[in-house]
Parts: sequence; structure tokens; C-alpha cells
Amino acid sequence: MKPTLTLFFIVLFNLSGFSNDGYKLWLQYYSIQAPQEWQVNFLSNYEVIGNSATLSIIKKEIAYASSGMISSHPEIKNSIPSLVIGKAGDLSAKNISNPGINSLASDGFAIFHNLESKQLIVSAKTDIGLLYGTFRLLQHIQTGTSIPKEGIFESPKVQHRVLNHWDNLDRTVERGYAGFSIWNWHRLPRHIDQQYHDYARANASIGINGTVLTNVNANALILTPEYLEKVKALADTFRPYGIKVYLTARFSAPIEIGGLQTADPLNAEVQAWWNQKAEEIYQYIPDFGGFVVKADSEGQPGPHNYKRTQADGANMMARALAPHEGIVMWRAFVYNEHTPDDRHKQAFNEFKPLDGKFLDNVIIQVKNGAIDFQPREPFHPLFGAMPNTPLMMEFQITQEYLGHDTHLAFLAPMFEEVLKDDTYANGKGSEVAKVIDGSLHQYAITAMAGVSNIGTDRNWTGHHFHQANWFAFGRLAWNPYQASQEIAEEWLKLTFSTDATFVKTMTDVMMNSREMVVNYMTPLGLHHIMAASHHYGPGPWVSGGRRADWTATYYHQANEKGIGFNRTYTGSNALSQYASELQNQWGSLATVPEKYLLWFHQVDWIQPLQNGESLWNNLAKQYQKGVEEARANIVTWENMREYVDDKRFNHVLSFLTIQAEEAAWWRDACLLYFGQFSKMPLPAGVESPKHSLEYYMNFKPHHVPGI
Amino acid sequence: MKPTLTLFFIVLFNLSGFSNDGYKLWLQYYSIQAPQEWQVNFLSNYEVIGNSATLSIIKKEIAYASSGMISSHPEIKNSIPSLVIGKAGDLSAKNISNPGINSLASDGFAIFHNLESKQLIVSAKTDIGLLYGTFRLLQHIQTGTSIPKEGIFESPKVQHRVLNHWDNLDRTVERGYAGFSIWNWHRLPRHIDQQYHDYARANASIGINGTVLTNVNANALILTPEYLEKVKALADTFRPYGIKVYLTARFSAPIEIGGLQTADPLNAEVQAWWNQKAEEIYQYIPDFGGFVVKADSEGQPGPHNYKRTQADGANMMARALAPHEGIVMWRAFVYNEHTPDDRHKQAFNEFKPLDGKFLDNVIIQVKNGAIDFQPREPFHPLFGAMPNTPLMMEFQITQEYLGHDTHLAFLAPMFEEVLKDDTYANGKGSEVAKVIDGSLHQYAITAMAGVSNIGTDRNWTGHHFHQANWFAFGRLAWNPYQASQEIAEEWLKLTFSTDATFVKTMTDVMMNSREMVVNYMTPLGLHHIMAASHHYGPGPWVSGGRRADWTATYYHQANEKGIGFNRTYTGSNALSQYASELQNQWGSLATVPEKYLLWFHQVDWIQPLQNGESLWNNLAKQYQKGVEEARANIVTWENMREYVDDKRFNHVLSFLTIQAEEAAWWRDACLLYFGQFSKMPLPAGVESPKHSLEYYMNFKPHHVPGI
Repeated sequence: MKPTLTLFFIVLFNLSGFSNDGYKLWLQYYSIQAPQEWQVNFLSNYEVIGNSATLSIIKKEIAYASSGMISSHPEIKNSIPSLVIGKAGDLSAKNISNPGINSLASDGFAIFHNLESKQLIVSAKTDIGLLYGTFRLLQHIQTGTSIPKEGIFESPKVQHRVLNHWDNLDRTVERGYAGFSIWNWHRLPRHIDQQYHDYARANASIGINGTVLTNVNANALILTPEYLEKVKALADTFRPYGIKVYLTARFSAPIEIGGLQTADPLNAEVQAWWNQKAEEIYQYIPDFGGFVVKADSEGQPGPHNYKRTQADGANMMARALAPHEGIVMWRAFVYNEHTPDDRHKQAFNEFKPLDGKFLDNVIIQVKNGAIDFQPREPFHPLFGAMPNTPLMMEFQITQEYLGHDTHLAFLAPMFEEVLKDDTYANGKGSEVAKVIDGSLHQYAITAMAGVSNIGTDRNWTGHHFHQANWFAFGRLAWNPYQASQEIAEEWLKLTFSTDATFVKTMTDVMMNSREMVVNYMTPLGLHHIMAASHHYGPGPWVSGGRRADWTATYYHQANEKGIGFNRTYTGSNALSQYASELQNQWGSLATVPEKYLLWFHQVDWIQPLQNGESLWNNLAKQYQKGVEEARANIVTWENMREYVDDKRFNHVLSFLTIQAEEAAWWRDACLLYFGQFSKMPLPAGVESPKHSLEYYMNFKPHHVPGI
Repeated sequence: MKPTLTLFFIVLFNLSGFSNDGYKLWLQYYSIQAPQEWQVNFLSNYEVIGNSATLSIIKKEIAYASSGMISSHPEIKNSIPSLVIGKAGDLSAKNISNPGINSLASDGFAIFHNLESKQLIVSAKTDIGLLYGTFRLLQHIQTGTSIPKEGIFESPKVQHRVLNHWDNLDRTVERGYAGFSIWNWHRLPRHIDQQYHDYARANASIGINGTVLTNVNANALILTPEYLEKVKALADTFRPYGIKVYLTARFSAPIEIGGLQTADPLNAEVQAWWNQKAEEIYQYIPDFGGFVVKADSEGQPGPHNYKRTQADGANMMARALAPHEGIVMWRAFVYNEHTPDDRHKQAFNEFKPLDGKFLDNVIIQVKNGAIDFQPREPFHPLFGAMPNTPLMMEFQITQEYLGHDTHLAFLAPMFEEVLKDDTYANGKGSEVAKVIDGSLHQYAITAMAGVSNIGTDRNWTGHHFHQANWFAFGRLAWNPYQASQEIAEEWLKLTFSTDATFVKTMTDVMMNSREMVVNYMTPLGLHHIMAASHHYGPGPWVSGGRRADWTATYYHQANEKGIGFNRTYTGSNALSQYASELQNQWGSLATVPEKYLLWFHQVDWIQPLQNGESLWNNLAKQYQKGVEEARANIVTWENMREYVDDKRFNHVLSFLTIQAEEAAWWRDACLLYFGQFSKMPLPAGVESPKHSLEYYMNFKPHHVPGI
């Protein structure tokens, strides 16, 4: 009843819990229990050399981290600082040097022990490199991971590491499930919200160096002075954190805001308009990153309207940006309901012939798979197929097809799966990651984009665990070869606790979570069977409407004989777009991995799979397995109560409960629907559906967020 | 550079500033510097008698308050508790009693010194009364205001103290400027967000006991099981805080969700539908508060569609709710573009003849003025005119017409002005407050509603100072006679600091702020000259469109001779709806208060006012004065830096800067526009406009929030 008025009490209420709404992300800087000497040393006895906006941020960050992590520990005083943070040039005045610094990229960093002076040094060629190094060191301190004897010398493997916000100017967010846009355009440019700083700081802490502020389904208004003034205010805020601003350019902007009659990329007036517009933008934002363009896709205008190629369109914008060192990220997500071919094939067919036809400051932004951010897709066949045109990766961090806000799915294993896939472009060992980091084809530009899952929710991402997907994207954009397990562990330690049991248990949960979602949504290579439009919940019955390739029946092709999309040479032959090694492996029922089975093949219901049981039984059991995994997560989480503050614990618990219920919804709806065709009974161990198929088909929740 | 690792440091970073985003509202519980013995005593040596959900909340609240307010102070141990919190019945077992408790309302409270035991007692008849008393005591402790010798015995003077959320089911908020709706319908009922608890707690701390979850422009979906299940989850969450849930009932719901052909209130099927619907709602929510209805207004369906009266409509719903003790709050905001009469008069003309025709569980919700929440309006003529029908007050806390999110305007003086206005209904001394608390006409039901200014912004209300308007509404609903100055002082102390200079300075700023807004927007009785539709910024030129009474020219009637709406007997004669005392005073140019001058009169530009100068000069100087006041506030606030944490300080500073700029925008646009008619020069001291009239008329910002 009576409060005990001790330091512990204060720490309890103010640092580690009572009001922890998750806003602090992986930058919790929670109090380290029994810190080791090195942790205290670095946080209390340090020197940051120099002055700049970025260096001020570094200084504030260490002070803040220190106040949280070692608040209750007595300060250590020494004659010389234990930690020195300074650019290579500034260090030489102190007779500190290290050859490893020379080979760093401009935004790389070094953390090393200087044996002469017995100091730890964080160095880099630029202030931003120092910022990255500082964040990395603070992460080591929080997780209790000492700096190895040989030091850490890291440069990012990808140049442009950008978040794509699908945020509209009215603050709705397309495919956003964590509230609304954090960009309060109305208050800009005059009110710079603290959250803009916190956003930039969080991104910098994981190496993200670019942000595309607006939806790919673009509004030309963003390119008018009314909005450019606001964009400039954000760019000015983000600059000291090393973050460049990009905008989505609506292809028809010359008509909509320019007063022209055409947007034809070969029209001189149109070209002049874009040149002038670029000039204007760079007057507001001298380091403007460039344009992201979605053209000729899902109703967006593009070069097709004028019978021009994607290269014509991209190069027009590239010419406008080139004098200012801006780039064009041109999306390959081009498909058309009037093209009678498998949607899977259309981007490849459109872009492959254009290889080498793009200007040097164009990079083609390719989704990880050929359809659309499904829970599982084989890698996009364009990767490896365009040696003469830089390709970048587009991942979707927001979970359009993976359960929206409430379904825990750690996406790093999905990203990793694609990055590790072998394209065989230059023979075995031609992994997608090597396309992305440019090493396979010696691309001069490299980039990775992630469609943001950030919104106005107090914890930024809706699900506390979806913060991990933002974090993982940053880590993988920095280093596409990093293991997702390592990322999960680090995130857990930074965000919640370094307790070994907690980290081990929850790493397992996270590492399995995406596979679990595949199990209860789209096992064995099924895809795009979500409800129409908002993609929330099951919709295997979705058919009709404006275009076949927006229906579920198009993708699963279920009938009384079997199920699956035949993409072999007897079918759409999308498989032909992959290397022959993959055609051989994926093209045969005997060798195709079961995870891709129904992606490439139509398979009889009674076909035995590897375990000897029928396809139907396997399908049903996979759905059941997913449900059981979701339920088990609740129990596991309940055992984690002691490691997590109440607020976040309860928040996650309720979401896990929703996920388990919705997993069962998915299982029941899909098995009832597909069971109409298979006419086979549910195998033992698979629960009977709670309701009738009719019930599920008529269950249409209103006002689903994100569209 | 090096952090000083002391308690001070922790307090600095975690209690009073570093991360203060304003979420804690007036419940900051910041550390009391040099607390007095009584403050420490009550917070560290107390007893709460009994157990219930509400009592748990009380216990947690005191522990939390204690951890913040006296964290660094040694605990005081005594054999008996210094503070006892318990219901009257529970106290008698301890031989503590006080006759003052007997006369309390069920939700009133007593805080008194028990001389025998030398204890402070918080008591009440109910748990909710105890909760109110506890909050009040904690507020006394934070502000350092000791409990007077005679104690505090308070019952609310108004029974139903409700917030009206104009929140749509897609989470947009009509006239909401602080982000989006905090009701995440999609995640309900399964995820109960911590913010719902924090919302209820904040409301309970100021005595609010009801919440209308949905927009008055209602969506019938809210009455379907899909949503009632969600409403129930909120009601269950709010119940221990003493907060009842109400819904807006769409008049045409029987057609839209009931499958009927009509919504005629005299149709037996329609009546049966509402009866059944009420029955259903009460199965979900046994203590459901009732319906709020906007009918026959601005396109909403209503009894007029069936040639029935407002009483027919209200009574139909009242009959459905009566068996469950629910009430109907039926809005008097009824007007029609097909009625050729001054909009000012229409509600009175509609409702006055129905006085006494409503069932006992109906209360008519009347806006403070007859037009629509203008910066200044004379009180609504219905107040005092319906002795046989309970009337309730509807204030607008959200600042639709007072500058939206960024304009500091403390609204309590505006509320107070109306509450103190004398209706003369029963002779002199018949103030509006006496209508609202029921004492003038012996109303059996009393209520006050405030249109919420709450949204997803991290500080709830957009402008930090707009938290004060939510706070003030709660205080005035509890006691419509409380002085707004007292409310401002208390809010400042609870929210920022008890420093005398700070409180004095900022109380002055707050107390003058609404008058300042009137000065730079609508001086001398001008009204409704805001921009069309969103009402952001000046729009004195607004005319045409669908209805005259939605234009500015209708309201200001400016021409070459003069300006103002003639509502005397030579004009619309709206004045005739007021008592003869007011007709005499307001009807004559010689005696009308200048603040209402152009509300009731059309006045020549050259007409000398009290100061001997022309109307035009007075008008121009009032605009200039408002601008200067807004600029002065910036300077004043800059001097307050030492009292306020950085985050909130900078946030407020940027908003004050916006306000000063927009005040000048208002002045320039209005004086240019009206100057066309007056053709008189700007008097000395009034700055020349920055741009041309054409510029202002063409300045149309996009995506203004709130609609």
C-alpha cells in the first residue's frame, strides 16, 4: 500500500515501465543491471571532438543514453577520456590513427581500441559516419556486447537505404495499419514536431539514409510551392541525421499542375517542365534525393499513355535531376489488365528488353517477388536479368498481406530468404543480395527500399513487435548478408531485456512467426487469396470484378481435380523467366520445394507429397499447424511477463490473442472453401470449422484501415 | 559534457522534461520542490478502505502521484494513516463521521479534517465520489493548496457532464484538429488500448461522467452488433471511472440497418424497431447512457421528413430508452435553407412551441449561441424560454471557428460569459447557469455537453494549451459558477509549474486569449466570416453556393453605407426572442454593448462609437490590436522558458508564431475586403496589408484538417 520511496521506485516508474508506450523503440536505454566497467567508462568518461549539427546530436544521444543505462551507477573519473569520438582528420591531432579508416565508405565507421592510449575510438570520414558508429557503440553497450579486439570496421553495402511512405496528403496511409501519417502537412513548415526528430534519429540509429515522404500513388500537389516549402522544412530537420528526402512524382503532373496538354516524355515542353521543376525543388532542398515513380500500373498514368517505353519516362526525369545529382527510382511494378498474360510475367517482359537503355542516374525498383508482397514469393525473375541496369530491392515492411497491424510476423527471415536465393545469373552463387549490393553486375548505384509501417500510433508501428521489422529493414539495407536471427536477438535486447531466457524464447517465436503466417494463410505456395481490396482476412472466394488478376480464384485455380497456378511450360510458363537451373528444379513436381508447390504447379488433391500424405491432407494440416503455433505464442508470451513492462506486455498479449483467433478464421474459411472442390474430409487433428462457409463469405468487417 | 549522475539528473530527464510530450495532461504529478509536511504525509501515509475496480484505480493513482510528487523525499512513518479514503459506511466502523456527507449527491465528495484522530478524510456515498475526491485532493497537493479548516464538500451542480466526440467510424474527426479519432474501432473489442484507460482517468479527474463516442452526423452502423460489441468493450473499460457511454442515433437507422421503408416516428413498426434496438443495446451495456440526436439539420434526416415535430421524434426514442433509464439528448440545432427566416431565429421558432411536449427522459441540447460556436455570440434565446422542458448546454471545445489547432484561445471566459448572461426569464438574476443547473425552472434532468478537442496527437489536443479547454469544460460542467480565472490558474499549476510569476503571467495570457481571437477575427459583433467549409482562415468574401446562411456575406451584410446584421424590429427581429430588458438594451445603438454591435445592428461606417472614432476606425484598430496581442504572446512565452520543459516550450512557441502570422492574415484580408465598401483609409497605427485582396481571396490551402 505505502510506496517505498527509493531510487528503485523512481526507476521502476519512470525508466523501465509505468509509462512505456513503446515510443522509444529500440532506443530504450533502460538501466543496465550491474553494468561492467567498460559500459560505465564509455558512458561517463568520453570526448566528442568538434562541432556541427550532427555532432550535437551525437553528444545529446550519449548523454541521454547514459542517463538511462547507468543512471544509478557512480561516475568514473579519469584523467583521459575512455572513449573518443572524432573524424579521422580530428584524431590525427591527437596522434590517433588506424589504417582501417581509409578504406571506409564516406558513411562507414570504425570502432577500435587504441592500444597506445588505452582508449576506445569511434571514427569515420564524415559526421554521419560518426553518428552511425556512435549508435552502434551504444547498442553494444545496451546489449552488453563488448567491442572485439580487432574492432569493428563497417561500410554500408548499399548506398541508398530508404523508407517509402505510402502517405497521402490528407494523412491517410495506403496500406498503413498504425494509425495515420506522421507528416502533419497542415502545420508544416512552421511547426516542426519533435516526432520528426525522433523519426530521423530512429532511422539514423539503423543506418537508413533516405525517406520517400509520399505515396507511390502520387498526388501532383506535392510538387507545388505550397508543399515544397513544407518538404523543405522536413528535409532541413532530417539533414543532420544523414537522411535525404525523396518525393513521388506523378507522371501526369505537367498536365495537372503545369497547365500542359500532355505529359508525353518525348515532348519538349514536358521535358522543359520537368527540368524547371527539378531546378525549383533544388532551390528549396539542395540535397534533394530524387523521384520515385509508379507509372503504368493500377491506374497510374505513365509512358504507355503516349506509347513510350518505361525508359523514355524514366530518362526524362533522370535528365531533369542529373545536374543536381538526384536519382530516379522507377518502379518495375508495371502490369495491365489488358495484357492477357500471367501478371507474374509482365514486369519482366516490359523491363528485360530495356536493359541498358536507362540513364546512369536511374535505378529500377523491383519488389521482392513478381506478384505483390505475398507472405511467401519466389524472388522476382528480374533480379539477375538486367546486368546493365541497376536494380534495387523493394520490400514491404507494412503487412498488407500478412495480417495487418495485429499479426506478429517478423519479416527478416522473409527478406533473408529472398536475398539468399540464387539467381544463377553468373552461375551458382549469384544470390539476389549480390544484385542488390551491386557486386554481381558492378552496378554504380545500389539501393534498397522498404514500404514503411510507421503511423501515428503511440508505438509507431501498431504491434510492438512490428518495430522489429523497421529495425530489420535498416539492418539488412546496411548489410543484406546479415542473419535475421542475429537481428532478432539484438532487437529484443535493445527493446525489452538482455535476459538470456527471454531473448532465446522470443527469438524462436520471432524466427518462426512468418512461417506461421504462411501456414495459416497461404501454405504450400498459395498466394493472393486475401479478401478483396483491403486484403484483411481470407477471401479465397474472391472473383469477378474489374480485373481477373485482382481476384483469388485467378491465383489459386482450385477445381475438383486440384489446386495451384501452373506456371510451367504447360501453363503460363512464367518459370521460363528464371535461370535454367531453377526451371529444372522448380519445374518438376519431384524437385520443386513444397513451399513453392502451388505457386508453379496445379496439383491434384490426392497427389501424395513428400510425407506420403495427399496434398489435401497436407494443406489442411498446414493450416492447423499455423493456428496451433499462433495459440502457442500466447502461452509463451504469458511466461514472459516478468521481463516486460505491463503496458507493452498487455498490448502484445491482446494482439497475440487476436492473431490466434484470426488464424483460426483463416483456416476455417480456406478449408471450407477449398473443401468444396477436394470433397475430402479433414484429416485427424484438424479442427472442424466454427461456422459455415456462407458465414465466412458474408463476414465483411467495415472500415478496415489502410486503404 | 559528462553527465552528472545524481538523482537530479534522473528527475530532470524522466520526470520533468526530456520526454514530456504532454500526454500526461494536468496529471503531471511532477516533483514538488521542498514539499510541506502535509503534502508528504498524505502521499506516503494513507489508507484506502475497501476493494472494487474503482478503489483499485484510486490506490494506483495515489501511488503513481506519490512517486512523482514526493519521489525524492524521505517517507514519513506514523502509527496511524494521515489520510483515510473511504465511503461513509466504511468510515463509521472507524468512528469517523461528518454530517456534511449526508447532503452530498451520489457522486459528490467530502474532504475534511477529522479533529479527533487528526486525520484528513476523503469520503463520499459511492466509489465514484471517492474517486472524484481523491483527484481533487491530489490536485490540492500538487498545487500546494492546503485543505481549508472547514473542509470541502462538493456535489456536481449538473448531472450529466459529457464529451461529444464528432468521431467517424473511419477515424476521421469532424472539426477535429488534433489528429484522428482515438477510437480504434478495428482493433476493438479485442484490444483495449491503454489510452482508453488514460482517457477515462483524465475525464474522471475533472468530473466528466459521460462520453458520446460518435459524430452527431451519425452513421447507423454504430447501432449494429458488429459495432455494439466494440462499444461494449469501451463501456466496460470506462465504467470503473464513472463514465457512461452514449451513442448518436441516426434518425433514419430503421431504414438503413433495419430494413424498414420508413423512419416515421409515429409508425408502429418504427417504434417497435427502436424499442427492440434499445433492448439490444442494454443487453450489451446495462448502464448505457442514451442517444444524442441531430435531426432535420444540415442534411440529417429527421421528423420533418414525415411532417412530424421534433417532439414526436425525440419522444419515440425516449420511449424506447425509458425502461432502461436512458435519456435522449435532442439537439436544438435545427435550421433549414428553405425557411426564409434569419437562421438565428429558427431553432427558437421550432422548439419554443414544443415546450412541455417532451417526455421526462428527453433533454434539449442547445448550443451556447443561436448561430454556431462563433468566437463570440450572445446566449441562445432558447435559454430561459422553455421552463417546462429541460435544456442542456452544448459548448464546442474544439476550435472550429477559433483558429483550429494552432491558435491559443482559452475558452473558459467565453463559456463563463454565456453562463453569466442574464436571460431575465424569471426577472433579473435569471442567468443561463441557472437554466443549466436546473435551479431556474426546477428541471429534473440537467446536463452539459462539450464537443471534444481530443485526437491522436501525442498531447491529445494539438495545442498544449488546448488541454486547458478540456479541463475547463470539466470544471464548469461540475460547477457552472466557477470563475474561469481560477480554472486557468489551477490548470497552469497542475500542468506546468506553481511558480508565482509563471502562473500570474500565463493566467493573464490565457484570460485575454479569447478576446484576442475575437479582435483579430470577428470584432464588434461580426460573425461567421471564416473561409467556407473548413472555416480555417478569413473568408469575408464567401458568398453564393447552396445556401445563403452558409456564406459570410449573409452574416456581415457589408455595403458602401455600413456593415452588420440588423436583427432589431426593423430587421430580422431575432431580438424579439429575448426578454424585453434585453430587447431594450441590445435594440438601441446607444445602449447595445459594442461587443454585440454588428450582431444586432447594421451600422454606418462613419458612425462614431463610444470613443468618438468612426466604426471603420474602431474596426481596423480592433484587428490591429488582436495582431499585436498575438505577437506580444510570443515575447511573453519566450520569457517563460525557464519554467517549461523544452519539448512543450518549443511546441507552444511554434504555435504562437503561427497564430501571430495568421492573426495578421485575418486582419489584412478582412480590412482589405471591408475597405472596399467603407472606402476609408486605415487609421494611424494599423499596418498596411502585406498582400492584395486578390492574393488573400485566391489563397486556398489544401487538405485543411477537420472535415
